[in-house]
Amino acid sequence: MIADKMKGMVANSSAIRAMFEEGTRMAEKFGAENVYDFSLGNPNVPAPASVKKAIIELLDEEDPVVLHGYTNSNSGYADVRETVAQSLNRRFGTSFEGKNIIMTVGAAGGLNVILKTLLNPGDEVITFAPYFGEYRSYTNNYDGVLVEVSPDTATFQPKLDEFETKITPKTKAVIVNTPNNPTGVVYSEDTIKRLAAIMEAKQKEFGTDIYLISDEPYRELVYDKVEVPYLTKYYANTIVGYSYSKSLSLPGERIGYLVIPDEVTDSETVLSAANVATRILGFVNAPTLQQKVVAKCIDEETDISFYDRNRETLYGGLKECGFECIKPEGAFYLFVKSPVEDEKEFCAAAKKYHILMVPGSSFACPGYVRLAYCVSHETIVNSLPGFRELAKEYF
Amino acid sequence: MIADKMKGMVANSSAIRAMFEEGTRMAEKFGAENVYDFSLGNPNVPAPASVKKAIIELLDEEDPVVLHGYTNSNSGYADVRETVAQSLNRRFGTSFEGKNIIMTVGAAGGLNVILKTLLNPGDEVITFAPYFGEYRSYTNNYDGVLVEVSPDTATFQPKLDEFETKITPKTKAVIVNTPNNPTGVVYSEDTIKRLAAIMEAKQKEFGTDIYLISDEPYRELVYDKVEVPYLTKYYANTIVGYSYSKSLSLPGERIGYLVIPDEVTDSETVLSAANVATRILGFVNAPTLQQKVVAKCIDEETDISFYDRNRETLYGGLKECGFECIKPEGAFYLFVKSPVEDEKEFCAAAKKYHILMVPGSSFACPGYVRLAYCVSHETIVNSLPGFRELAKEYF
Repeated sequence: MIADKMKGMVANSSAIRAMFEEGTRMAEKFGAENVYDFSLGNPNVPAPASVKKAIIELLDEEDPVVLHGYTNSNSGYADVRETVAQSLNRRFGTSFEGKNIIMTVGAAGGLNVILKTLLNPGDEVITFAPYFGEYRSYTNNYDGVLVEVSPDTATFQPKLDEFETKITPKTKAVIVNTPNNPTGVVYSEDTIKRLAAIMEAKQKEFGTDIYLISDEPYRELVYDKVEVPYLTKYYANTIVGYSYSKSLSLPGERIGYLVIPDEVTDSETVLSAANVATRILGFVNAPTLQQKVVAKCIDEETDISFYDRNRETLYGGLKECGFECIKPEGAFYLFVKSPVEDEKEFCAAAKKYHILMVPGSSFACPGYVRLAYCVSHETIVNSLPGFRELAKEYF
Repeated sequence: MIADKMKGMVANSSAIRAMFEEGTRMAEKFGAENVYDFSLGNPNVPAPASVKKAIIELLDEEDPVVLHGYTNSNSGYADVRETVAQSLNRRFGTSFEGKNIIMTVGAAGGLNVILKTLLNPGDEVITFAPYFGEYRSYTNNYDGVLVEVSPDTATFQPKLDEFETKITPKTKAVIVNTPNNPTGVVYSEDTIKRLAAIMEAKQKEFGTDIYLISDEPYRELVYDKVEVPYLTKYYANTIVGYSYSKSLSLPGERIGYLVIPDEVTDSETVLSAANVATRILGFVNAPTLQQKVVAKCIDEETDISFYDRNRETLYGGLKECGFECIKPEGAFYLFVKSPVEDEKEFCAAAKKYHILMVPGSSFACPGYVRLAYCVSHETIVNSLPGFRELAKEYF
C-alpha cells in the first residue's frame, strides 16, 4: 500500500533496525556495560551548561508568544540569523548578512531544503565515497541521481581525477563532508583549491551552475589544531549546511542553518526558494526556542578533549592489535580496514566480543568498518581486550 | 537556477510576502495599534504556565544526553508515544498503543511524512474547498495530484455527492480538516458517517485502499461544547495528524504526531515507512525537549475563553455591519462573504481602514475572505469602527 519509492527504503531500514535490536538484546543478555556499541553517532558529551542557562533565561525574559510562535519569516528569527552571520564573519573573515542565513531543522533538514530548491528530476549530484548514506535518500527524494566517486583508500582525500570525468552537463551539485563521516579525514586546503578549479572550469565548459554543498556538522570537532577551510572563500557557488548536533550536543533538538552567500548565482532567487522549501516540506521554521538558544550560545567553544582522549585510546589500541586505520583529524569516527575482504564477516566476528561496528558498505566503501567513538571512555578501555582477541583470529 | 517545480511557488510566495510587508509598512506608518492584521494564524494566547514548568523540570531532572539526544526510533521516545496513545484512549475510547504514534515536526511535518509514505506519482488526493492552501504544495511534493470538491457555501459542510463522483481508482487519500481552516466549521457526525460509507463503497468498487487523512490542529479549539467526532472510529483506513501549535500555543516549536491505527491496511508497513520517511525527509525526529514537554502537559486543557470572546465580538460586530458569515464552531477563523464578487477588491478596500484579511482564493473559495481572530481582543474592538465605515461602501 505504500509508495513504490519507499519499499526498498523500508527493507533496508529493517536491516539497520535488526542491528539496533541486536545491540539492545546483547545489552539485556550481557549487561549494557559489557556491550561495546560503536555503531551510533549520538554524542555522549552532555550539552554545555550554557545551554540550560540560556533556556532558563529565555523562559524568564522572552514573551512566550514570540518565543514559541511562528517566526515572521520561514527562514527564522531575523536577530538569530544576524547573530549567526556575524559569528561566521568574525571566525572566517566572510561578509555574510542575516539574509544569507536560513535556520534549519538540523543539517539533514538543511540538505533537504537545498536539494528541493535546486534539483530537477534527473539532475546529478556527485559525492565522494565513503560518504554518509543518507545523501542517496535526500537526492532520491527530489528524483536526482547520486553519482559516486570511488574512494582513495590510501588517504581518503577525494579522487579529483575521477571527479573531473564524472562532471556532466547534468551535474547540479557536489556534496562534500569535511571533517568526514565515516573517515574523520579533513580535506586539505590544497584539495579544496583543486576541487574548486575543476568545478570552475566545468561550469565554463558546460555553461551551467554547479553548486558545492558543504555538509559541516563536524566543523568544530577537529584535533591537533588542524584548519578546516571555509569553502565559500574558495568557490563562489558554495552553500554551507551546518548543525549544532555535535558542537552543542543537541542532535535531538534539530537545529542548524544553511548559508547561501550573495556570490551564489541568482542568490536572491535561491534564498527565496529555500525559504519556500522550508515551509512546504513541513519544517515551517526551525524550532524557535532552540534558534534563540544557539544565538545565546554562539561563542560557546566545543570541548573536544573528551573525543580527543577517546580518539587516542581507540586509535592506539587498535594499531597495537595490528589493525590498519587512518588517524582521524576530525569528527568522532575511525574507519578501520577489515582484515578480511568481506567486512560484514569481520563485523559478525566482532559480535562474539560484544563489539558492534557498521560495515563500510553502508558508506559505499566495502572492506572497511566504521567505529563511532562518541561513547564513554570506559567503553573504549573495556573494549580493547575484545579487540585483542579479535585480532588474534586474523594476524 | 532553481528547480522548475519551485519557480511558481516562489512567485506565489512573493505575493504573500508583499502582503506581509505591507502590514509591516502600515504598522510603521500608522502605529501597530492602529493596524488590524487578521491575516495570520499565529496564536496570540501565551503557552500555559505548565509548559515553562515542564521545561524547567526536564532540565533539572533528565540526563541532557537523553533529553537533547537522537531518539532511538525516528518515531520518537517510546514513553512519550505511549503517553499520547493512552491519552487518546482515555478521551476517545480508542485502543491505540505507543507503536501507533509517530511524533512529528508539527502537523505540517506529519502530513508530509504520510504523503511521502503513501503517494506514487499521479496518485490523487481529494480535499474539500475551502481548504488550507498548503495541501496542494504537500501533495505536489510527492508528485500527487490534488483534486478539489467545490464548496457548499450554504453550510461549508463537504459536498458529498460531488465527492462521490470524484473518487477514482487513482484516489489514494482524502484530506479533511475539522474544525476547519478557513471556515471554523466542524463536520457533523452525520457528515462523517456518510463520508465513511462512500469511501468504504468506493474501496470495494475499485479494490483499492483509500486513506482518510484527518488534519486536526484545531481539535481542541471548539465552542459551545460542540463534539468533534474522532475519525478512526468511523473509518478503518484513517490516519490522524495532530499539532500542539494551537492547543498549547507552541506553533514555532514544531511538535505534533501522526496516529496510524492497527485497523489501517498493512499498518505495520505503513508505520515502518512513515518512520523511514521521518528520517529521510530530514526531520530525523520531532524536537526532543518538546516531545517530553507535551507528554508532561498531556492533561492540560486549552483555555478557549480567550478565542471565544474574540469570536463573539468579531462575529457580532460584523453581522451588525451587515456582513454575511457562518458562525464558527471551532478554530479561530471567520469566513466572511465578500460584498463584491472579486474579494480581492474587498480586501483592497479594507486596507483603507488598516484592516488586513486573506482573500478566499487562497483557499480555493473566491468571493470570501478569511479573518484570523487569534489577535488581542483590543485589536478586534478597535477594528469595528473601520468595518462600519467599510460596510457603508456596500450596504
